[in-house]
Formats: sequence, C-alpha cells, structure tokens
Amino acid sequence: MLRNRLIDGVRRIKPILCGGQSLRSLSNGATSKLTTIEVDDRSGIATLSMNLPPVNTLTMELMHDLIDSINQIESNKSRGLILTSSNDKVFSAGLDLNEMLNPEVERLRLFWTRFQDLWLALHLCGLPTAAAINGHSPAAGCVLATACEYRVMLPNLFIGIHATRFSFVISKWMMNSYQSVLPRRVVERALNQGKLFTTQEALDVGLVDEIACSKEEALSKCAAFIATFDKTNPVARCLTKRMCREPDVRELLQDRAADLKECVDYVTTPLFQEGLCAHLEGLKKRK
Amino acid sequence: MLRNRLIDGVRRIKPILCGGQSLRSLSNGATSKLTTIEVDDRSGIATLSMNLPPVNTLTMELMHDLIDSINQIESNKSRGLILTSSNDKVFSAGLDLNEMLNPEVERLRLFWTRFQDLWLALHLCGLPTAAAINGHSPAAGCVLATACEYRVMLPNLFIGIHATRFSFVISKWMMNSYQSVLPRRVVERALNQGKLFTTQEALDVGLVDEIACSKEEALSKCAAFIATFDKTNPVARCLTKRMCREPDVRELLQDRAADLKECVDYVTTPLFQEGLCAHLEGLKKRK
Amino acid sequence: MLRNRLIDGVRRIKPILCGGQSLRSLSNGATSKLTTIEVDDRSGIATLSMNLPPVNTLTMELMHDLIDSINQIESNKSRGLILTSSNDKVFSAGLDLNEMLNPEVERLRLFWTRFQDLWLALHLCGLPTAAAINGHSPAAGCVLATACEYRVMLPNLFIGIHATRFSFVISKWMMNSYQSVLPRRVVERALNQGKLFTTQEALDVGLVDEIACSKEEALSKCAAFIATFDKTNPVARCLTKRMCREPDVRELLQDRAADLKECVDYVTTPLFQEGLCAHLEGLKKRK
Repeated sequence: MLRNRLIDGVRRIKPILCGGQSLRSLSNGATSKLTTIEVDDRSGIATLSMNLPPVNTLTMELMHDLIDSINQIESNKSRGLILTSSNDKVFSAGLDLNEMLNPEVERLRLFWTRFQDLWLALHLCGLPTAAAINGHSPAAGCVLATACEYRVMLPNLFIGIHATRFSFVISKWMMNSYQSVLPRRVVERALNQGKLFTTQEALDVGLVDEIACSKEEALSKCAAFIATFDKTNPVARCLTKRMCREPDVRELLQDRAADLKECVDYVTTPLFQEGLCAHLEGLKKRK
Repeated sequence: MLRNRLIDGVRRIKPILCGGQSLRSLSNGATSKLTTIEVDDRSGIATLSMNLPPVNTLTMELMHDLIDSINQIESNKSRGLILTSSNDKVFSAGLDLNEMLNPEVERLRLFWTRFQDLWLALHLCGLPTAAAINGHSPAAGCVLATACEYRVMLPNLFIGIHATRFSFVISKWMMNSYQSVLPRRVVERALNQGKLFTTQEALDVGLVDEIACSKEEALSKCAAFIATFDKTNPVARCLTKRMCREPDVRELLQDRAADLKECVDYVTTPLFQEGLCAHLEGLKKRK
Repeated sequence: MLRNRLIDGVRRIKPILCGGQSLRSLSNGATSKLTTIEVDDRSGIATLSMNLPPVNTLTMELMHDLIDSINQIESNKSRGLILTSSNDKVFSAGLDLNEMLNPEVERLRLFWTRFQDLWLALHLCGLPTAAAINGHSPAAGCVLATACEYRVMLPNLFIGIHATRFSFVISKWMMNSYQSVLPRRVVERALNQGKLFTTQEALDVGLVDEIACSKEEALSKCAAFIATFDKTNPVARCLTKRMCREPDVRELLQDRAADLKECVDYVTTPLFQEGLCAHLEGLKKRK
C-alpha cells in the first residue's frame, strides 16, 4: 500500500503544513513579499528566489513565504522548480539563530514546526527540483539544497552543515537529507566536524552535481536537469520520487511532536545557550 | 535470532513460491521448456539460459520455468548459477506488459505474485549467482540482473529500470534491489528519469562489474567470480548473503499481500492504463 | 526525543557493559595488565595499545582491559582516543577462537557478551576515535578498526572480516559496522568472500583513510584527524556521532539477548564446530 500511502501522505501532509495557520493569500499569485517566482513561459520552469537581505536568513517570515511559493508552484503544475537566491554572495545563511537565543518556548515550537514544514514541502515536492547555489550555503541553507534533486554551484563558495560548531545537534531528518546525497561515511565525519565544503570539495564528494561559472549558467544547467524528465509520466515520476524519499521522512511524519520536543528540550539547555551565545559574539566581532 | 530466522526464512519462503501451485516436474532435471540448464562438469557451475523468442519477455510461463530452474539448481547443490540469455540481442525485455493492459484482476494477482516469487528465488538463492548480460536488459530484465551477485555485460547495450517512461511505479523491493548495487543518490535520479544506462555508464556507476567482449568471455568472467568463494564454507556463505539481503526483503516477506494490493490498485487506474496504452502504441510504431 | 534518548542511551549502556561485573580498578589509572594508555600532555590525546603477545588475540581478559581503558579515557575527558598495537606485525588477530571450540555454554555467553560490550564501548565512545593499524587486522581486529572514526594503516598488511572462511556467520551489528564505512555492494561481496584486503585495496574502497610509512607517522595522522574537531563543541559532537551511529546499534540495544542466543545456537552446531576444527588445524600446520 506504499503507493496509496504516498498519495494519502500528500493529502495528510498538506493540512499539517504550518500547523493549521492560514497562509497569506497572494493577490496575483506571482510574488510574495520575501520570495519571487518567475515562470519561464517557454520551458514552464518556475524559478523561486529567496529575497531577504542581507543574507536570506530563514526567519519565520521567509520560511512562510517559501512554503507558500513551493505550494503555489506545485499546484500551478509548473514543469519544475529551481531554488536560488537574489543575493549573489549568500544562497541562505541558515536558520534565524536569534529565534533560538533565550527563546520563548511557544515561539520556538512555532519556529521549528515551520522549518519542518518547509523541509517537507521541498523534500516531497512532486515536481522536479534543483538548486542554483549562487552564494554560500551553510547549515539550513545546505539542508534546503540537499532537499532538491540536483545542485549546481558557483565556484569559491562554502556549503555544509556546520551545526556542531555552534553547539547545535541537528535532527535525524536533516541527517537523512544529507545522507540521501552523500555516502554514510562522509556524512558522519562531515557532521561531526561541522565541515563546510568548498565548491570543488562539494563536487568531489557528490554534495553538488555541477559547477557553473555564473548564476545564468547555473540556472541553465538546472533547467537542463529538469528537462531530463521530459519523457516520463509526471504522476509516476512523482510517486517514484516519494517512494525513494519515504524512508527519509517516515520517522518525522510518524511523530512530528517527538522531533519538536527533542529540539525544544535541547535548545533550552544551558549548554546550547552558552555555545550559541559565544558563536553569536564571534560573528559580531568578525563584522 | 537472525541466523535462525534466516534458516527458517528459507523454509518459509519456499512453500510460498508460486502461491501453492505445484511446479511442473521435469523428466530428467536438465531442461524445462523456456529455460535451459547446462552444468559444467569440471566447474560444477550451472548456466541458466532464458530461451523465449523473440526477446525473453517475462511471461507467466517463462517466470514459472525460471523459478523451477533456480530451485532445481539450488537443490542440486551446484557450485554457482549464471543467468544468461539464448538470444544475443536481448537479455530480457522485462515483464509481459500485455498482462497489465486491461487486466482481469485475478490473473494480474497471479502474475504479480509470480514475479515476487521469481525475484525472491533469485535474490535469496543460497548459491553464488552472476549474470552474463549478453543483450539489452531493461526494466524487470535489469531487476533480475541486480538480484544476482555479479554482473558482466557486453558492450553497446542498455540496462536500467525505465518504468516512469511507461507510467509504471515500481515496488519498493525493486528499488531495494537497485539500491543494493548503486548509491542512494544515483538510484533516486535514475528511477525518476527512467534512465537506461549504456554498458559503459553502467560500469562507471557500478551497476555492472565488468565488460566482456563476447558471451563466452562473459560466462568465463562470471565463473571466475563464482570461484572467489572456493575457500569459504558454503553454509556460512549462504547465511551471510541472506543476512546482508534481509533488509531488502523484510517488508515484502512481512506483507506480500500489501505489495500485491498496491500493484493491482495502481495498475487498474485509468492513469496507468492510458500511459501503458500510449507506450505500447509507441513500441508498435517503432517496429 | 532522539537527543534525549541518546543521552539516556549513554546512561543505559554503561551499566550494561560487562553484564554487571565490576571492572578491575586501576591503581594509578595509567595502565592495566594487557593494555597501555599513554596520554600526550600537549595534545591531550590518549593512545590505547593492545599488548597481549603474540598476536593480540581478543581473549576474555584483553577485552576486559580494553573496555576498562576505553571507559577510563572517556571519563578522563581526553581529547581523543587512538587504538593501536604494541606488536608491529599484528594489530589484533581477532577473537579467541578457542573460546568457540567445544564451548561450555555459560562461558560462551559471557565471552560473546563481552565482545558486544567492547564493540558498543568503542562504537559509541563519545570522544573522537582513530585506529593506527600497524599490523594485520583480520576478523574482529577489523571490526574494532571500523568501530573507530578514522583508520590509518601501514603498507603490505591485511584487513577484513574473513569469517566465512572459518564457517562463522557474523552478527548483524558487525555487518553494520562494516557498512558504516563501505558501500553496501562492497560489504556483501567482501563478507561473502571472506575477503582480506591489502592495505592498498583497503584504501581504494575506503576501508582505511590513509596509508602511513611508520607507526609514528600513523599515530601522527590519527592525531591530525582528531584535531579536525577542535572548533566543535564536544557535547554536540558526541550527540551528533551517536545520532549517526544509532541505526547501527538500535537492534542490538533493543534485544541483546536475541543476538546472544543466535550466536550460541550457531556456534554449538556441528557444522560450525567441524569448520572451526578444520580451520584451527590448518593454522597449526602453517606454523
């Protein structure tokens, strides 16, 4: 009953997204505040740009708009989705760590739930997805990239989940996302080290699929990847993708509350709060 | 209790094979109608050839004879099993899609059960197994090849599970079979694309282990692989193989009915029937 | 609740180790009889040497002392642990097979439980771990090496799990340990063949990470690996390592008795006893 469960899964997931809060309705369906959607009329491919200066930090609002945009692109039956950044230096700097510093628990629960929602929306998106990584992509920026099916990256950038460097312990589904792309041995070592890969290192281990010299070329390579599905049946493709990704999401979907509780319990420990404080101080000094 | 469960598993699996139907008894144990078994007296290796013109389509009958032959080779305690084709152009063209076109449900259930049986018989075969892929090996032809422990392929052929191209969604155990050979990232992309690998591409990703210039050389390389087990204890080898493969088959063995229901439910959807119709029309036109 | 479970897991695991037997207390915390601990005052890294002539066979006593030493190094909050051998020809020859020959069942249960304990202690050790493999490393010697996070090996040695060559069937958690380092396809084939990899072959498949020309250089490369964690938070690193390794140990931790029973049932079969007898005869003749 996997195929049926998967179809049901889609139905079940959607109402869960954003925990029952209504998504901001869009006037003309083309843009929301912090994201931009551009649909190429010839190819039918939608380019979704993160557009929150200065570094596309995944705030509550940016995540809201990303989920909204992904859903919109999916329901418009675009031919594919390319995730990129309006900012030429940073793809996304990752989660808004200020939400984790001395957090009010209810707000933290809302924040983490939204991140779960965003990852599920992208990881299980029925359309072909690709990331044109035109800037640094640390932490949750990397998690978003690995939730796509293909990654093209510009030279001399950094990508990776460096959570152990700011005392954070990622969730198992984030590890699964990494492991869907990298060998088991590479995953453990990189997560333990909090490794940030250069573009070339990322290509060598398979974390990215191609290097492009410009954002334009990256978008073009992503479009070429999406075109490799032209001869497939879109529904069969979507169900096959979800079958492949079902083991990655199974535990989270079966018990989202457990993942949430675990995150809240850890984030509110003095250990993490001290580590985060020191990390944020360090970032300030670098500026 | 894994080792015990595995030994039990063997006992449990066997009566399930072919859903209780009695297998055709063979007069001299050397041949059945659609398959040929040749045992090399010196090496003790049995070569099992598929022999159904024109393209070794896995019909109900060919699958029956394959299961029968695998069981016979196993119970004769041959030193190993090499699967190959009598046809120099096609190893196997895959499942008989006519069984899926406007199927009578009871017949479809029998057909799919037999395919499950065939895969289990080959995937869990206690002997060393290798495939001498001397012709194209698409779809279920590729699944049979990946159920073996080693693959040697002739140049300029195609191999891969291209189900999404004819609207089919494979079962999870077929994905597991692919994933026992290929990295997770390669599996998802290839299944989504319905990718057919050339011989060289298949070698590069690890879908096949060696290239041979002739069928004779392929058979010889397969025999050399089987000889690598000469210093091992056959029972310990068999139990070790089954331990490695147990995660691949666990879900199917625990609930074969669920996989069957899922297949029947999907195959009988208008979506699949339309996709299959268009695919079969396309094949006719190419001829 | 994974992170909590992991923290609990640590608590839960520790009392289980050595099945409630009290560990020999160490006078000055620096040495035990069959192992030596040397802590580098500058780096804070502890080097743990196996020191049981002639070939570091994992006897009941050596395993006891290894567990004791690992626990001691961990509780002393060393910066990392390097496992090596005092013997320049053999890292460890593996389990004491005499314990498996015509065993008294209660003694065998104690022996296997201690091996489970040893593997758990090393595989889940909170510190960064590396193996300086300065001698041959067959069977359980290889299992200990793969339980570490990094492996540096001297040239012209052998490493691998060759259990099928002496009729043994390893436990699933030993397979998981192998698979945490090697691709699935390589694991099955190597286990089935009972393959012993040369140093160069081990490097090529990823079973070891680096080759060193001397023991000194191997220790130095291990220390360099341990230094890659300098910028990480040690608690976050430890929890992340355990999250990565949790799937490897889950089944064993959930039902250690089942693994024990399975081992005892298999070891006491005539099949295994005959195979082991022949293997031990063969070893004697070679001497």
